[in-house]
Amino acid sequence: MLEKLIKAARREVKADLVLKNASYVDVFTGKIRKGDIAVVGEKIVGTGEYDGKEEIDCTSLTVLPGYIDGHVHIESSQLSPEEFASLIVPRGTCTIIADPHEITNVCGMAGCEYIATASKNVPMDVMLQLPSCVPATPFETSGAILGGKDIEENITKDYIFGLGEFMNYPGVLFCDPDVIRKLEAAHAAGKVIDGHAPNVYGNDLNAYLCGGISTDHECVTEEEIEEKISKGMYVHIRHGSSTQNLGNAKYITPANMRRFLLCTDDRHAADLKSKGHLDDALRRLVADGLDPVTAVTCATLNAAECYGLKFRGGIAPFWLADLVVVDDLKNFNAQYVIKNGKVVAKDGKPLFDTSKRYLPKSVLNTVHVKDLKAEDFVLKINSNKAKAMTIEPGGVVTGCEIVDVHHENGDVAVKGTDLLKLAVVERHKMTGNIGKALFKGYGLKGGAMGITIAHDSHNIILLGDDNAAMAKAANTLKEIGGGMVIVDSASGQVHSLTLDIGGLMSSRDAEGLQHDSKQLIERAHSMGVKREYEAFMSLAFLSLAVIPKLKIVDKGLFDVEKFAFTEIEA
Amino acid sequence: MLEKLIKAARREVKADLVLKNASYVDVFTGKIRKGDIAVVGEKIVGTGEYDGKEEIDCTSLTVLPGYIDGHVHIESSQLSPEEFASLIVPRGTCTIIADPHEITNVCGMAGCEYIATASKNVPMDVMLQLPSCVPATPFETSGAILGGKDIEENITKDYIFGLGEFMNYPGVLFCDPDVIRKLEAAHAAGKVIDGHAPNVYGNDLNAYLCGGISTDHECVTEEEIEEKISKGMYVHIRHGSSTQNLGNAKYITPANMRRFLLCTDDRHAADLKSKGHLDDALRRLVADGLDPVTAVTCATLNAAECYGLKFRGGIAPFWLADLVVVDDLKNFNAQYVIKNGKVVAKDGKPLFDTSKRYLPKSVLNTVHVKDLKAEDFVLKINSNKAKAMTIEPGGVVTGCEIVDVHHENGDVAVKGTDLLKLAVVERHKMTGNIGKALFKGYGLKGGAMGITIAHDSHNIILLGDDNAAMAKAANTLKEIGGGMVIVDSASGQVHSLTLDIGGLMSSRDAEGLQHDSKQLIERAHSMGVKREYEAFMSLAFLSLAVIPKLKIVDKGLFDVEKFAFTEIEA
Repeated sequence: MLEKLIKAARREVKADLVLKNASYVDVFTGKIRKGDIAVVGEKIVGTGEYDGKEEIDCTSLTVLPGYIDGHVHIESSQLSPEEFASLIVPRGTCTIIADPHEITNVCGMAGCEYIATASKNVPMDVMLQLPSCVPATPFETSGAILGGKDIEENITKDYIFGLGEFMNYPGVLFCDPDVIRKLEAAHAAGKVIDGHAPNVYGNDLNAYLCGGISTDHECVTEEEIEEKISKGMYVHIRHGSSTQNLGNAKYITPANMRRFLLCTDDRHAADLKSKGHLDDALRRLVADGLDPVTAVTCATLNAAECYGLKFRGGIAPFWLADLVVVDDLKNFNAQYVIKNGKVVAKDGKPLFDTSKRYLPKSVLNTVHVKDLKAEDFVLKINSNKAKAMTIEPGGVVTGCEIVDVHHENGDVAVKGTDLLKLAVVERHKMTGNIGKALFKGYGLKGGAMGITIAHDSHNIILLGDDNAAMAKAANTLKEIGGGMVIVDSASGQVHSLTLDIGGLMSSRDAEGLQHDSKQLIERAHSMGVKREYEAFMSLAFLSLAVIPKLKIVDKGLFDVEKFAFTEIEA
Repeated sequence: MLEKLIKAARREVKADLVLKNASYVDVFTGKIRKGDIAVVGEKIVGTGEYDGKEEIDCTSLTVLPGYIDGHVHIESSQLSPEEFASLIVPRGTCTIIADPHEITNVCGMAGCEYIATASKNVPMDVMLQLPSCVPATPFETSGAILGGKDIEENITKDYIFGLGEFMNYPGVLFCDPDVIRKLEAAHAAGKVIDGHAPNVYGNDLNAYLCGGISTDHECVTEEEIEEKISKGMYVHIRHGSSTQNLGNAKYITPANMRRFLLCTDDRHAADLKSKGHLDDALRRLVADGLDPVTAVTCATLNAAECYGLKFRGGIAPFWLADLVVVDDLKNFNAQYVIKNGKVVAKDGKPLFDTSKRYLPKSVLNTVHVKDLKAEDFVLKINSNKAKAMTIEPGGVVTGCEIVDVHHENGDVAVKGTDLLKLAVVERHKMTGNIGKALFKGYGLKGGAMGITIAHDSHNIILLGDDNAAMAKAANTLKEIGGGMVIVDSASGQVHSLTLDIGGLMSSRDAEGLQHDSKQLIERAHSMGVKREYEAFMSLAFLSLAVIPKLKIVDKGLFDVEKFAFTEIEA
């Protein structure tokens, strides 16, 4: 193999592909250089003057190393890995550090295996982090549990790259034996452990880092970034759909620059399609005043170094030929994307087969509930005052408001009020668990809606003012194998959208999915859901029992601040 | 294990050792910070405020990460690894990337095994690079040959860290199959390959790098450094005894800084003892105007990153507790050195047992020659004009001068002239090979001298104006098992110094060795060797057939520029 590279580097034979007369970003010296870039097989063999069997004139273009997303959950796009790649590879992303936390909460290791295998269908390297916190909390029923023993057994697998974001920082600080076992297994295997530790400082941060954790994508303040970097962490600059901290780039200095990476964490298909992926982050960072070469270095070499990806993230002989050819360092419009030495996208369009999909049975039909009836949603409250959940538009933090409740036939009467019933129906183990709560101010009238994306255990979350419609919504979700649904009590009409992969992602293409998704969202608004909410997706976080204040899981109402279940009665 | 760290980090228990109230260099942000540094077992557990079972007041001191020497041949000190460590650990060096190229040329893999095992006696991490070029050239007889097959068999061994400096760059450029085999074996094992490619530029450099080579410690010009770094290499700043390029630090910029390392390559015991090791490099770099934090970062984090040494080279929780406590960032006088969390040196003195020595038979008695006689050194030249080797003081490049020769009994008569006879006696395989040459201007009169250090095959190199004295010198070297010798024809006296380990290094302590070495050198000067030469060590490079111009090996006189053997007759 090496002979071919060496002979081409010395121009004894033609290179396979040459980017002629390019400007290119040299991330090693921080300069923009000029020359031909020669590629043989998967490798760059040289910069300078070269002839190729295939040549691309890059006279007025700039070549960058392929981007590396330092932390991403593919599931947040609601797309299959193949379709996800078809959106982001043409933007210039060649490698992602992916944590399949959501699908693993539903399907266990079969979810990891699915993402790993599906990713092989596309020209993008998916470095798979074994999810470290499945389930996220012990207070809910998830589809799978990955305990210390499971981490030990799986962390050494070929398709597992490292250990995913360690969200359970109290578990680290309090030396939970199962947590310690997970961390020690990852160390024994020599794997990188991603972190997640918002607002952890001082001695607690020291203790968390003594778990051998390397990264954080949650920090936003100068103080937190400074402390985390000074304690050896890599810090991600995040460009998700909801969670953004591009402002972190303000704190980059020449001395700490190598510790910054870019990531997207959670990014929706609509944003990927209309705005882009890391290319959009680069565009915005540069518009905000960051030196473009610095921005590119964060998106490439720094990530490669953090994750120990050798010979990747730079344009140099023997380095992986993952290259992005852009119009300029302002717009970052990708004209060509080269992955492993092959042109895989041109003018923002994929040149690879995007129709090939891996779809194993193990991730399909994941909604396991008995047939539900109207009476399953009767809510008995032994008081005239109750706690109702509220949520700010655009946020994931919930509030708790004390409301007056009216009773009718042993049920709470919500019709015609500003209250709705909220229910989390366990959908993995057929436990029959239904957690119930009141929800104020969302606006839905005359029906019910539901979704099988409910962080992080992804049970069914339902909302409605009509028990029968709620039952119908749940039963429809079972029928379609997961997704989103809305039921109109008056007309009896049911509208749904299928997310067949684990109830989280669709095996369809992005365009069709988005079209149907928009229609369903519009229908929710037409039934009263206030336009300041993201109709369905705002519901998906009402069950996330690690974010304040009041949450609902399949086992009941949960007070995050007290970190305990609570009564609905006020 | 992690519990202990975490609990101490949270101050639930006392740390094992705390450096109280220290200033410390934060290599991640380039700042000097203030605080306590807490250590448990081998790890740093936190910075901030801590109490320890043992505490060291560092109020007026500065703490740095332990230094990492990016490339060193221990053999050049003529000391055992244990004694070598006793000199450099108290200076602050905690890790070395060691290439046992010399001892392996003599003893083969037994040489590597020896260095690896001996190193375990001392508190210093020796990352052993498997020598890639044994022998250095095919034109001489070495004690061992490590071919592609040998590299394949040994590169995966536990005690082998990577592949040593790949000096045979023509072999890479011309795709020598055995060279390719070595490189591919190292890649398959995922090992770092060190480079050595002086004055290789452009497409040839691209081709060399296509061998997957990561570092270079030979470059000195801005142009070469710039090109090598821009092509993804790490560049060493070298502080050897003879070969120095501290001036490379002038070319450090904030953007390329992370690609610079420090190394010593070849450093004599006398320099280690009187001036120091990397501490001396730091002192001089800072005196020359380099920012001290930058200098420290090159000597620590950068080297760790280059060689993939995780959690090493910085002061942070979970990072290895290799620490140097210095007086200030100008003098770098090490007050304490902490290795793996233990105080191993204080006030420049080792606190560890330096008397323990591993001394296997496999590296002893390595001088294998038949008994030599005066007539073995008869030099027949079929001309009155001959080529004589010359050498500039302080250099390793030799010259070629055409001289008149006088014959006497079928031998060249050198007595009373400015010429001496030079001979390389093969000492590994009993081949009986003796390469002979003339040497002009060295000054020795009335006797002979010899040494078993003769780069890189380390045969016996002899010099004299008296055949019988030359034979006596060779026989003495055999008798003592290698070392240095001087024979006075007039008195018949023989003075010698034993280098029992492979004929290269002594198992004695540095002090005694240096004392005897000085005496022997003085004796050489008293017998006429000009004081501008390093009496014995200048001889050791006369056989190095990769450095111009005229060299002598056991198979004959070698013209390096023509890369072929040559006649002595002019």
